[in-house]
Amino acid sequence: MTPNSFSPDVTPPEFRDIADLPAAAMAHRLAGMRPADAIEILNDLDIDVAIAAIAHLPHEQAVRLLDQPELRRTGEILEYLPLHLAGSFLDAMSADRVTDIFQELEDPTRTRLFAILGTETKAALKKLLHYPPDTAGSLMTTEFISVPAIWTVSRTLKHIREVERTRETVYAIYVVDPETKVLQRVVTLRRLITSEPDAPIISVGRDEKPVAISPLTDREDVARLFRKHDLLAVPVVGDDNHVIGIVTVDDVLDAMTQEMTEDAYKFGGLEAITKPYMEIGFVEMLRKRGGWLCVLFLSEMLTASAMQYFEVELEKAVVLALFIPLVMSSGGNSGSQATSLLIRALALQDIKLRDWWKVALRELPTGVALGALLGIICVIRIATWQMLGFYDYGPHWMLIAATIAAALVGIVTFGSLSGSMLPFILQRLGFDPASASAPFVATLVDVTGLVIYFSVALIFLSGTLL
Amino acid sequence: MTPNSFSPDVTPPEFRDIADLPAAAMAHRLAGMRPADAIEILNDLDIDVAIAAIAHLPHEQAVRLLDQPELRRTGEILEYLPLHLAGSFLDAMSADRVTDIFQELEDPTRTRLFAILGTETKAALKKLLHYPPDTAGSLMTTEFISVPAIWTVSRTLKHIREVERTRETVYAIYVVDPETKVLQRVVTLRRLITSEPDAPIISVGRDEKPVAISPLTDREDVARLFRKHDLLAVPVVGDDNHVIGIVTVDDVLDAMTQEMTEDAYKFGGLEAITKPYMEIGFVEMLRKRGGWLCVLFLSEMLTASAMQYFEVELEKAVVLALFIPLVMSSGGNSGSQATSLLIRALALQDIKLRDWWKVALRELPTGVALGALLGIICVIRIATWQMLGFYDYGPHWMLIAATIAAALVGIVTFGSLSGSMLPFILQRLGFDPASASAPFVATLVDVTGLVIYFSVALIFLSGTLL
Repeated sequence: MTPNSFSPDVTPPEFRDIADLPAAAMAHRLAGMRPADAIEILNDLDIDVAIAAIAHLPHEQAVRLLDQPELRRTGEILEYLPLHLAGSFLDAMSADRVTDIFQELEDPTRTRLFAILGTETKAALKKLLHYPPDTAGSLMTTEFISVPAIWTVSRTLKHIREVERTRETVYAIYVVDPETKVLQRVVTLRRLITSEPDAPIISVGRDEKPVAISPLTDREDVARLFRKHDLLAVPVVGDDNHVIGIVTVDDVLDAMTQEMTEDAYKFGGLEAITKPYMEIGFVEMLRKRGGWLCVLFLSEMLTASAMQYFEVELEKAVVLALFIPLVMSSGGNSGSQATSLLIRALALQDIKLRDWWKVALRELPTGVALGALLGIICVIRIATWQMLGFYDYGPHWMLIAATIAAALVGIVTFGSLSGSMLPFILQRLGFDPASASAPFVATLVDVTGLVIYFSVALIFLSGTLL
Repeated sequence: MTPNSFSPDVTPPEFRDIADLPAAAMAHRLAGMRPADAIEILNDLDIDVAIAAIAHLPHEQAVRLLDQPELRRTGEILEYLPLHLAGSFLDAMSADRVTDIFQELEDPTRTRLFAILGTETKAALKKLLHYPPDTAGSLMTTEFISVPAIWTVSRTLKHIREVERTRETVYAIYVVDPETKVLQRVVTLRRLITSEPDAPIISVGRDEKPVAISPLTDREDVARLFRKHDLLAVPVVGDDNHVIGIVTVDDVLDAMTQEMTEDAYKFGGLEAITKPYMEIGFVEMLRKRGGWLCVLFLSEMLTASAMQYFEVELEKAVVLALFIPLVMSSGGNSGSQATSLLIRALALQDIKLRDWWKVALRELPTGVALGALLGIICVIRIATWQMLGFYDYGPHWMLIAATIAAALVGIVTFGSLSGSMLPFILQRLGFDPASASAPFVATLVDVTGLVIYFSVALIFLSGTLL
């Protein structure tokens, strides 16, 4: 047997004909595969074929597949499975996964499935369901290993061997006070197996405060903590410092991927969508995109008002209109650059909220320099066109060029400044700084940009063109 | 001892006065902290104070801190430490970290430090340094546990206990053919400790092909594989199926964070920057932003050319100019939405390259519907302003409203279509689809949008205004 190197995007040939097999034979083939591969096949099958295949799988295998967040349509699958099967699967699945599934189920299926759960599953579910999404509570599972501080290393190891099958991870062991149940220390399995069997568990590992989080910790902070301390799992403690669950690194990876997608959507000016692109319905797609598009459109209408205000100037010098898109887009572009820089700087905590003025002091000269750069390019362009006779900007072409260059300095500076301050303002108001979107910044800069442009024109051109 | 819940953004009071201590006392305090906390303090200290503190730390602690990628200025620290200390630290650090540091060092420091390394470190470094960044090879480390297939469980456990200290992870054990050294199976520590001590190691765990990658696998694919199979580590195999290293989940988390930042920068229209915002010099900042800004500016100049072409129409109907920013920005906004949707869909492999036409078939009606929505809003606005006497669009105001509405349908459809196709085109050409930026899409749509706008105007208004 040789390892197969990873090649994305390719379905191995032996997997392709599986859809035509009878359910039992299909189940047999699926059971022999790596779970992740079996899931890819199940996701591609018609829903009733997938359900039949899962019903024919050995219990343990079925649970293993249903437990993976990558399996799509799990709610539907459980809904249409024979009720006793669905119940026994749900009871055997990990609590965090069952919670995710119930969060997406709708009544009456939700009530019907809840009724058949075992007492323990019901209790765990009730506890986990009340945490808001995007918090540690919604990521956590209740299947962890915790032992009293008076146990020895060998007794702990024996306990791990007994309960291993039902725990999400055994690589971190939570040592609690035998009386108060307060978390005292986290011992890694790595340290455990290299320790003396008779040593008390509390003596194993470094004597340092355990890293722990609250169930309400934001999932971005959870990810940051995992990166900072190179964790595989982190205990979630309640107000009384009892361990109520753990978050494992695989859930953090999934949460980060979701976060990446949400941030990309937000920055692109879209509402969050959790479904894959092809599964988003037409109406839902219109709603998720249309909402922001309308808000931006209504705001951008201010540009029409601004231009109406300057209509007299515009009629006197139509040549000014020629450069409106160019000048305005430069402001939007520099703003979008500054926003993306600062969104990440705040997310990585390279910069704190209180440092906003330091950023403003950096963006000011940066904006001026970038605006001047574009201004010079624009002057060269106008001069070249004029002198080579490509276009005639009129007798005052030098004044026009100067107007546009000066407006560019003003607009690019304003774009950089407002683009960089927007994430700070959002964070200060309690929003996610990543909610700042490129289209929003562009709209903000467009309206102001027009005012700057025409004001500069009035200064430079009154007495000649205006 | 009670666990401290995670609260970002706050430095505990006891850490604040540490900068004023003499180096030895400071080292003593740092040694007692969690490594991640000690690193935060070191990052905030003046460089020579940080170097003195590290020189005073016990060897093992210093190595532990230097081993963390979160420690900044490590190259500088090693450069100014006494040479014998730097050498002994580097030899004890993990190979992947040493590689990262050497990648950033410049001559003559690089050559000077390389000369003092031990033979083993030198060999590992030479091997790791030749892999391109962003590949598995650049993330991997050579410190893993591999055992011959003929060993028993207890012999493997004994081996793990002996070498544990020098290995990046012991939670995955790589079982290789005793003759050919080819990777045969991956056994988790979890399975190992629950197996019979006398069982052969090759009988432990599921009989499935090990998941493995090549050193040239892209880091995004590596992250996808970790998510898919819920891995803690993955073996990197060469052409001969020998294990040459492993990538661990903590490095994947760091790589994903970097990827998030790079993608955000790219989408915002910036070149990749790896430094924290405040450490980017003024000139470097101008270079990273000015390059793209100039390219976009030069492209956007085509809007001036387009408008020069339509100057006659513009002079006849200055009212058309009023709506140029509004109409054009709507195209840019819908394009940026579509681009961010498709960048993520391709990154998550929800959609394959060959599905581009399915996407185009969805974006076409979506764009028409969104454009119509904005068109209706715009007609209402013009009608309201006209009837309430806020502004006089002239006797042909209904034709003008129709022109703008029709142009919006065309431009938003074009924006959605081109915005969604751009990531496909980039991927087809071998670029990262995430290189598509909001400003780039906006520029693309601006130029075409102007042509659409004036063409529609010519159709609707010739004979009346034009």
